[in-house]
Amino acid sequence: MSDIVKIAIDAMGGENSPNKIIDGIEISLKKNKKNFFYLYGDKEVLQELIEKKKLIKDYCEIIGTKDVISDNESPLAAAKRSKDTSMWKAIESLKEKKTHISLSAGNTGALLVISRLQLNTIDGIGKPALAALWPNRNTMNVVLDLGANIECSEKNLTDFACMGSALFKSLFDSNLPRVALLNVGLEENKGHDILKKTFSILKNETNKNFIFSGYIEGNHIMDGDTDVIVTDGFTGNVALKTAEGTANFITQSLKSSLNKISILLSYTGLKKFKDKLDPRKYNGAIFLGLEKPVVKSHGGTDHIGFAHSIDVCNKIVRAQLIEKIKTNLITVDAN
Amino acid sequence: MSDIVKIAIDAMGGENSPNKIIDGIEISLKKNKKNFFYLYGDKEVLQELIEKKKLIKDYCEIIGTKDVISDNESPLAAAKRSKDTSMWKAIESLKEKKTHISLSAGNTGALLVISRLQLNTIDGIGKPALAALWPNRNTMNVVLDLGANIECSEKNLTDFACMGSALFKSLFDSNLPRVALLNVGLEENKGHDILKKTFSILKNETNKNFIFSGYIEGNHIMDGDTDVIVTDGFTGNVALKTAEGTANFITQSLKSSLNKISILLSYTGLKKFKDKLDPRKYNGAIFLGLEKPVVKSHGGTDHIGFAHSIDVCNKIVRAQLIEKIKTNLITVDAN
Repeated sequence: MSDIVKIAIDAMGGENSPNKIIDGIEISLKKNKKNFFYLYGDKEVLQELIEKKKLIKDYCEIIGTKDVISDNESPLAAAKRSKDTSMWKAIESLKEKKTHISLSAGNTGALLVISRLQLNTIDGIGKPALAALWPNRNTMNVVLDLGANIECSEKNLTDFACMGSALFKSLFDSNLPRVALLNVGLEENKGHDILKKTFSILKNETNKNFIFSGYIEGNHIMDGDTDVIVTDGFTGNVALKTAEGTANFITQSLKSSLNKISILLSYTGLKKFKDKLDPRKYNGAIFLGLEKPVVKSHGGTDHIGFAHSIDVCNKIVRAQLIEKIKTNLITVDAN
Repeated sequence: MSDIVKIAIDAMGGENSPNKIIDGIEISLKKNKKNFFYLYGDKEVLQELIEKKKLIKDYCEIIGTKDVISDNESPLAAAKRSKDTSMWKAIESLKEKKTHISLSAGNTGALLVISRLQLNTIDGIGKPALAALWPNRNTMNVVLDLGANIECSEKNLTDFACMGSALFKSLFDSNLPRVALLNVGLEENKGHDILKKTFSILKNETNKNFIFSGYIEGNHIMDGDTDVIVTDGFTGNVALKTAEGTANFITQSLKSSLNKISILLSYTGLKKFKDKLDPRKYNGAIFLGLEKPVVKSHGGTDHIGFAHSIDVCNKIVRAQLIEKIKTNLITVDAN
């Protein structure tokens, strides 16, 4: 049983839940049976869905919860009244050491608040951050923070470098991830003071759990020369969404530019192209810096995307992400 | 002669200059003969190039300058020793009222510093900003600041809204541009304090030279529902470069996905697609907030891109951009 990853799932969060949750679990189990799922949500509905799926019955336990947090609620209002919700209970199971990791496709802001309310931060970490995967020419980058912290100190950004490289190691089996700071130029004097201070801390750091490769500009995020890209939550959120908007704009313009015969003739090539950019493959933002890992699936993803986020959960627990973060930590005097 | 736009051109800045400059002027003159060009640079080289072009001889005057600012120089070092350069002299011609607008494809940082050294800011403007055009589903947005100011106050961002909408009016003949603030969410309480203060100033403003449409997120920049997008120079620079990197990544992945027959069969459609995204069409960043307009062409663009930036110069002068900025200005107590 020590080999089994216990995943607490908020089965009610996100579009088309809990259906896509159960379908996602089924897809995931077909590939990997070393997960066990604790499903938090409407007991009757979940029971009925699971009855139809022979495969997953033996890999699930349902824990009935009374209430659900909706996507439109303000995080603080939701958190206040959340103690009977599927989201709260899923996180609570981490605190109680019943599960190893928690996964939700629900309200992101509420998930961050509820996680922080119930879980301690790792000793030495100033602020937790939201990290995600971003495709590049070779494989994927880890980028953080994507919106958990609007303003960050040099201590926070240094923590993000340590946590992001630990995450990259956990997901991609790398020994020395290359970490870069997102900036508006490559020279040491570019950017604002906090970036310059972070640059100087990371440059002089002798703890060799990752390689600091200096600054990176937005146009090189996808080049594949870096593994972890560190930024504050404001910039990271704008960059991620801008990339998403640009990708949508281009692929939609493209669709209307190709005629049907061309599409058929290049079917295999275009399928590969579509696969490489399929956002479901990058589904699963990871809330890093708490004593237990919390994963956020995109609310709008489908069962295939949800299955990918289960895969992320499995890798994180197996690779002992939290231990890796502790090993990576650099001491910075917090101001 | 009052109908003629006098453009001061730093003929030595950017890759393949002055050749591309002269070729760009030729393209531009074929479309529009209501420009006159003052070319600052190496007299002999320019004379020789112009001798070969019958069309442009009557529309140019060469002013010999001794020195050139290179792309790799630090802005401040370049500015210090710049008084005999083509860039300095081109800007100086604005100060002397010999020309209406100045255009350079050279070192951006040096251009900003040299412009600020020689030209006053418009009365009431705190900091000048760099604006550029960004394609969207309908036509184009104006986005600013793209890197002139790493940190901005609510007064600066409010100025940017006024200047950006004046620029949009000048280029696209619109009466009431829709202005939005780039943020990480749409709710009034989202983002950092300076954004919230700017939101509140713009929301309560009764000077109706533009429509304030609230916050916008990065994934909606290209939707075409906004005309002017306002942000600080750090965020704007990261967003623009991230969009550029994403566009390159996708179009390169796409190229390798289509076979030759498909490309031939969809030739017209793909040509339109390529045209719409052609960065040369959006060439020309505008340095706004000085008493005279300064335009920066992309250093790496070719003669076609340079011709587009000449077109931008013509429109700006004809539309009396500086007067429009003055009309748009909102008074904000600078802290």
